[in-house]
Amino acid sequence: MAQAAYYEGDRRIRLGAGDAVDPAPGEAQLKVSHCGICGTDLHIYHGAMDARVQMPLVMGHEMSATIHELGAGVEDFEIGDHVVVLPLAPCNECPACAAGHNHICHNLNFLGIDTPGAFQSYWTVPAYTLHRVPANLSLKHGALIEPLAVACHDVRLAEVQPGDKVVVLGGGPIGILVALVARQAGADVIVSEINPYRVELAQDLGFEAVNPSEADLIQLVMQRTRGAGADIVFEVSGSQAGAAVMTELLRTRGLAVIVAIFARKPEVDLFRFFWRELRLQGVRVYEPQDFADAIDLAAAGDLPLDELITDVRPLSALPSGFEDMEKGGKVMKILLEI
Amino acid sequence: MAQAAYYEGDRRIRLGAGDAVDPAPGEAQLKVSHCGICGTDLHIYHGAMDARVQMPLVMGHEMSATIHELGAGVEDFEIGDHVVVLPLAPCNECPACAAGHNHICHNLNFLGIDTPGAFQSYWTVPAYTLHRVPANLSLKHGALIEPLAVACHDVRLAEVQPGDKVVVLGGGPIGILVALVARQAGADVIVSEINPYRVELAQDLGFEAVNPSEADLIQLVMQRTRGAGADIVFEVSGSQAGAAVMTELLRTRGLAVIVAIFARKPEVDLFRFFWRELRLQGVRVYEPQDFADAIDLAAAGDLPLDELITDVRPLSALPSGFEDMEKGGKVMKILLEI
Repeated sequence: MAQAAYYEGDRRIRLGAGDAVDPAPGEAQLKVSHCGICGTDLHIYHGAMDARVQMPLVMGHEMSATIHELGAGVEDFEIGDHVVVLPLAPCNECPACAAGHNHICHNLNFLGIDTPGAFQSYWTVPAYTLHRVPANLSLKHGALIEPLAVACHDVRLAEVQPGDKVVVLGGGPIGILVALVARQAGADVIVSEINPYRVELAQDLGFEAVNPSEADLIQLVMQRTRGAGADIVFEVSGSQAGAAVMTELLRTRGLAVIVAIFARKPEVDLFRFFWRELRLQGVRVYEPQDFADAIDLAAAGDLPLDELITDVRPLSALPSGFEDMEKGGKVMKILLEI
Repeated sequence: MAQAAYYEGDRRIRLGAGDAVDPAPGEAQLKVSHCGICGTDLHIYHGAMDARVQMPLVMGHEMSATIHELGAGVEDFEIGDHVVVLPLAPCNECPACAAGHNHICHNLNFLGIDTPGAFQSYWTVPAYTLHRVPANLSLKHGALIEPLAVACHDVRLAEVQPGDKVVVLGGGPIGILVALVARQAGADVIVSEINPYRVELAQDLGFEAVNPSEADLIQLVMQRTRGAGADIVFEVSGSQAGAAVMTELLRTRGLAVIVAIFARKPEVDLFRFFWRELRLQGVRVYEPQDFADAIDLAAAGDLPLDELITDVRPLSALPSGFEDMEKGGKVMKILLEI
């Protein structure tokens, strides 16, 4: 029976009957397999985005699925294909779209935030959002493609080169994925994270990982770079502390990459940007190439994706997933099997 | 008779006899012609850099000169040559130098700040700092090469392209030179400045120039760019207001260039950097190529350099120059004839 999880405001999730919307021309109806819980979903659950979302809302965008039905005119896919969704529907009219940056369209429709998402049995989406995943990639791992594509986008725009000294500030799911993709690109990566479980997990994955409240991160980076500083710092913590330390860690002309969503405007050492000719680049979501790269990387089997999956629960466990994420502690990525 | 102006601390300038230091091998002794007063000189005069400078200090680094004597082994220059000095002496050993960025050496000796400068009749410098200026460039205009090289560096690193929509925040000497060089590179430039005299001067030079306390700068830029925003914003004001508005003015993936020396760490909208994938680049001083570009530009006669020179005074008028700069008002660049 089709079911769905509905956010109804004020930290309420209701499990109920799901729709199965017939696909219009150019659309596909998916049978959702797995869907991860994103920090943005938690943010919505907390009511922080009530002004933007329409309730009741079916959240969920880190997903994998099988094609269940195809609308007219969809030629590149077949029923039964394993797919993931690049959950962005741009307006194709605004200045950002006109400039070729439709992934950050001024009027972007983010599927699972602005319109229904994948915490439901059947999900109908535009066919242009689909990316096929190969048979050797499990649907469980497929649910990690979306956050992995974020990391691929960030590392690509940062132009990480073999041998680069990279620091990742914040070792949550996105931070660890950025660290993994940067290492895959040949970088030496140090992870900074204050949650002891996540520090240990990063170490288990082979990274030099430190808790900056216990160790001197700046001194460590200077030791590892013979006083030069890091080539690239990925700021994934969204904190004033992260914004302050990133400028201290970088070499002359080094690059700070802003991955985090800063809820407040931090103080930033623009003098240091001047003094060392530092650079900064904001990065957001992904482009189709990043989904293709993420699928290739995951299918190649070189990334320790299983270590990132804390556990797999049924759809009805969405509230418990939110609660565990709130507590912090021993959580990385929680998947729901739909 | 050789004379020099000495900064002795606490806003005191003493005019006295100058040295004429014999050039060692690899050095040249210059007879200084003109030297402009830089904002940094004013900063030193105010005592803000007393911890760095050694008193008594001969300041001055925006200069032109004739070669008066050559030390042994200097082969590329002749006595009588008109020259300007790129006033940077790097250590050639630190990580910045090793990475090819010796203009922002970690142990940089800035001539006229860390060692004696050009507010004196005879100035002895390493020959590698010299750039010859052609006969069709007057020594008066030659004294503008150093600040013009700053602008060439900033515009070069920003990769300004023909047709780019550029906003310059701050219309002092460096801001106006950045605007002129960006226009020379084919950009459409808007200047934002609060000093009415400087707004008018920018307008006289053909720029669209506005006082942001009187006009809506954001609205203007959006009108001129059909809602897209500017390609590049040069932040030359060093103010919290400038740091705040720069992110509002930029198009998706637009570039903020930090030219100003921020005395305090401003709040910066890192969310906006994320949201629009904005970029930021700090820029400082110049490299030899920028001096060559500045000399070519000035010698070509296409820049209205006379308009930027408020007046030319004798060396003894250095204190009056500082006083006029402090008052603000009708001042752009004051030159001293040595």
